[in-house]
Amino acid sequence: MTAISDAPNSSSPNPNYRFAAALFAGLARAGVGHVCISPGSRSTPLSVCAARQPGLRVSVHVDERSAGFFALGLARASGSPVALVCTSGTAAANYLPAVVEASHARVPLVVLTADRPPELRDWDAGQTIDQIKLYGGYVRWFAELPTPDASPWLERVGAGLAARAVAQACGQGGSPGPVHLNCPLREPLDPVGWTGPGPAAEAAAAPRSAVVYERPLPTASPETVEALAALAAPGTRGVIACGPQAWDPELGAQVEKLARAAGWPVIADPASNLRAGPHAGADSPVVASADFLLRSDRFAADHAPDVVLRLGSTPVSKAVRLWLERHPPQELIVVDPFGGTSDPSQLATRVLAVDPASLCASWARAVGPGQRDEWLSSWRRADGRASRALADVFDADDALHEPRAVRELWQALPDDAVLYVSNSMPIRHLDACMPVDARPVRVLANRGANGIDGMVSSALGAAAADVGPTVLLTGDLALVHDLGGLLAGREGRSPGLSLTIVVLDNDGGGIFSFLPIAAHGESVRFEELFRTPHGLDFAHAARLFGAGYARVESVAHYRAALKDAFSQRSSQAGAGAGVGVSIVHVPCDRDASVAQFRTLGAAVARAAEEGLR
Amino acid sequence: MTAISDAPNSSSPNPNYRFAAALFAGLARAGVGHVCISPGSRSTPLSVCAARQPGLRVSVHVDERSAGFFALGLARASGSPVALVCTSGTAAANYLPAVVEASHARVPLVVLTADRPPELRDWDAGQTIDQIKLYGGYVRWFAELPTPDASPWLERVGAGLAARAVAQACGQGGSPGPVHLNCPLREPLDPVGWTGPGPAAEAAAAPRSAVVYERPLPTASPETVEALAALAAPGTRGVIACGPQAWDPELGAQVEKLARAAGWPVIADPASNLRAGPHAGADSPVVASADFLLRSDRFAADHAPDVVLRLGSTPVSKAVRLWLERHPPQELIVVDPFGGTSDPSQLATRVLAVDPASLCASWARAVGPGQRDEWLSSWRRADGRASRALADVFDADDALHEPRAVRELWQALPDDAVLYVSNSMPIRHLDACMPVDARPVRVLANRGANGIDGMVSSALGAAAADVGPTVLLTGDLALVHDLGGLLAGREGRSPGLSLTIVVLDNDGGGIFSFLPIAAHGESVRFEELFRTPHGLDFAHAARLFGAGYARVESVAHYRAALKDAFSQRSSQAGAGAGVGVSIVHVPCDRDASVAQFRTLGAAVARAAEEGLR
Repeated sequence: MTAISDAPNSSSPNPNYRFAAALFAGLARAGVGHVCISPGSRSTPLSVCAARQPGLRVSVHVDERSAGFFALGLARASGSPVALVCTSGTAAANYLPAVVEASHARVPLVVLTADRPPELRDWDAGQTIDQIKLYGGYVRWFAELPTPDASPWLERVGAGLAARAVAQACGQGGSPGPVHLNCPLREPLDPVGWTGPGPAAEAAAAPRSAVVYERPLPTASPETVEALAALAAPGTRGVIACGPQAWDPELGAQVEKLARAAGWPVIADPASNLRAGPHAGADSPVVASADFLLRSDRFAADHAPDVVLRLGSTPVSKAVRLWLERHPPQELIVVDPFGGTSDPSQLATRVLAVDPASLCASWARAVGPGQRDEWLSSWRRADGRASRALADVFDADDALHEPRAVRELWQALPDDAVLYVSNSMPIRHLDACMPVDARPVRVLANRGANGIDGMVSSALGAAAADVGPTVLLTGDLALVHDLGGLLAGREGRSPGLSLTIVVLDNDGGGIFSFLPIAAHGESVRFEELFRTPHGLDFAHAARLFGAGYARVESVAHYRAALKDAFSQRSSQAGAGAGVGVSIVHVPCDRDASVAQFRTLGAAVARAAEEGLR
Repeated sequence: MTAISDAPNSSSPNPNYRFAAALFAGLARAGVGHVCISPGSRSTPLSVCAARQPGLRVSVHVDERSAGFFALGLARASGSPVALVCTSGTAAANYLPAVVEASHARVPLVVLTADRPPELRDWDAGQTIDQIKLYGGYVRWFAELPTPDASPWLERVGAGLAARAVAQACGQGGSPGPVHLNCPLREPLDPVGWTGPGPAAEAAAAPRSAVVYERPLPTASPETVEALAALAAPGTRGVIACGPQAWDPELGAQVEKLARAAGWPVIADPASNLRAGPHAGADSPVVASADFLLRSDRFAADHAPDVVLRLGSTPVSKAVRLWLERHPPQELIVVDPFGGTSDPSQLATRVLAVDPASLCASWARAVGPGQRDEWLSSWRRADGRASRALADVFDADDALHEPRAVRELWQALPDDAVLYVSNSMPIRHLDACMPVDARPVRVLANRGANGIDGMVSSALGAAAADVGPTVLLTGDLALVHDLGGLLAGREGRSPGLSLTIVVLDNDGGGIFSFLPIAAHGESVRFEELFRTPHGLDFAHAARLFGAGYARVESVAHYRAALKDAFSQRSSQAGAGAGVGVSIVHVPCDRDASVAQFRTLGAAVARAAEEGLR
């Protein structure tokens, strides 16, 4: 009797390899440059073909959850789709957190999960789970691939699947995001009779008439632009509110044009990538301190807008959200080129599925030049006062609390830095303390689902994109959540990879001290259930993973440690050699940090209200 | 304008708390004893009510993936359902690996995920993902709970949902497994106006006519038993092959009765919990070395069976599987009380959804006493020869390779120990080297989906069940995969928790050296893609997480370290004070371990074939 798992008798090349080679040749051809591989047996043909495909870099990750976030960070920073390979079973389930984030944040990933062939599924074969549509609605496309066999069309189908997978991941079907290819593979899994990516795979990947997928971003009709121009009539109090969005080197200039033409301020979330950049110089319409300014009820009421243009996803600032909810603008225009509806407050009056940069450009043209500066000037003056108020508070105290640590970090960043900022408090501190800045520093954040998971891996992935010196700003709990992610940064493991991690360590969940539950104290077991102190000394983590480490307790020491970290990196840059991970550990007092944050907020509110007199 | 997230004006108790209190009172009443909580804001009412509910213990876990596996291990070791609480977003996605394992392994979990209320979903509100049916087909029941409001029936519905959730998790709808309650909660999230679990929650949890869910396990009909008895006629060569299954103190005695009556050997997987126990004494029908014996083609052919009774899920031994595939028995009976079909080789002739213990008992009665010992004796003699052959190989070499380390660990275990064994090589080494043993040592393994993820957390969860001194046997990659899981074992964090971790460290994926891909060497980048050496020194991990640590390089040192670990535990047992985690680190040479495994196999094969002469 032939066993179901017996190998076929054949001396021809293992069809798993013919198919996988065509698949990876096609992925490389369609724009994938990197494959994150987690070790496994069933996935052997995928791993080997990925590694042997010219044009693909591979990195190897023991933990698939970390691999998923590494791929996410890399795709986010590079703007190119990244592929993932894992074996069957719970390995694939570990991708879900990164897949969810990629789905909400619209980051292109191509997830390839090895699987048992259909005849072995649901009969209790080892390491076999139901992987069909494993990621539910979180993927833009799911395909159960054919089980490779002797079919002559294997290569053609592999190439076609690869091209389509990348197109779907890049938004062909609506918006960019993850796609899932489930790959059934029969034994034998080793490359019997196969010698490498050969002419067949090459031919399949570069056929005479290669498939090209196109989906140009839509632009607004002249009628719409005309209607929008009317909304920006002189005297209209408008605001351009920008939430987290992918870095787009074109967008800043166009937003600035519209803002100047209409005389509207730009409220720019840190992760909107509009608060810093060439368009955000000293004289720019970008304001930095909206979050603190709008905590003043008087300022908020005095500056209630008539028209709001919303770009990107929901801003991190709760003050901005409450301001709009309490002073609903007559018109609120949500722009999303991929057709989403970012409007949790139900304030939208118009939802435009158009390209934001081209919309801003044509809207600005339609408005034309004008002298409508009073409204914008009022925001600029308030922001200037806020900026001085922040500086005064920081100058009055030399203690290294969380807001100060974030502020210092921002100032110390190299001009071409990539700052990956964790959720929970770090992004909020950054929103509060980051100035308007003409340097082209990029800010990345996992603002799709706002989780604190996968931060180390996301940042290491961004570092692997090699677009600038990369820094992770994180709290201690996020670091603990993805501690194993540090493995990818171990020196020698990923040559050329370097990352500075600044960890604001208040020994637990600092954000809860800002929430109403904190007032209930031990009646709700606040320390145990919410604050969750862990008492870990990250010096040991640094030693475990071979990372550099500095514990800093003063502003001076912190500045020196940051300078060290960044100069070390730039001195290595030319050589292409990474220096791995270095951790700048900033122990922060929780209560003093909360107090400093509130002092800053109160100072800005006072400054804002002074301007109203 | 009222903001969608504004708090209602009300001085009555926060309905979130009325509802959550009833929910947790109901869970406690239905048999949940432990809730694993991960910190979050949206989940505040769930966390607070879980912690304040009499009869529930809570533990707090920063990483939801680790929390999921902790709950899995605890439920597996205790046999009782365990609840999980997390906040909204990717937090919930991190449970998927443990949910998948629990589904396949039929471990009862009640997963409670906090969520935004429906009006905030899919409008890009913060930390809001689509949690409806997030775990797909992996849960036995999904319920979207009502958003708590002023309804007078809140408590009644909460109690009813809790009772039904536990019933579904325990198999009311088919088989035990995870259930998912998605819990929408509106602000305010702190316990405004609520003072604790009160009479309403109590009354709801203990109403006049409490709901009782019952689903007795089915038993075989007399006709079936008669037919089975005929299959065990004198001279029939039968085998009872037992795969991984939940520990059942009744099953061993019944299986032994049937085996003795029919004269059939019992091939017992380590995780079947039938190779050790009171029924598995010196004279028992249980054989230990089937995996090695059946690697001899001559022995396998000579011992081809006519009838096979399969209990539990698919055994870990590939040799057993191939033996049956190459020598298909006339009859193969798969028994699964929950109606599954464990038959990847398509050999079953009868699939019985009946309780295995009662089936074995009535089948044994129907067979009656008899003298049919020759077939069984032949297996026993072979197993005896195998046992001596193993001992001879071990005695001839004092080196601490992986098989030896597993063998020594087994011998050193306290009688009432719980051994949690990792997938990949540890379970295979245990299958090869674990003797038949009359001690009631329990073996737990994640053999639902056979992943190497979550091992540390699973074992810590099992330790929290407090059923005996708990030991994790793991490889280094599984330890790396769940390194953060060690946090739950940090001294002081979970009082009373203690675990010994024996890590066989061959610096990478040792299993790949056993697979055909190893022969392809650097042409497939074997070291980088498959072996994946990491070079981590676990001494630093021990320091980071405050665990005890011993690195052992000789058998004598290893024995002393194990003795230390176990005696420390027993001396503390009475006091109820745990000593946290201690790591016994066994560096193993990969190639020498592979060689020792193959030497053992060859020795057993020779011994098996000698008996055939």
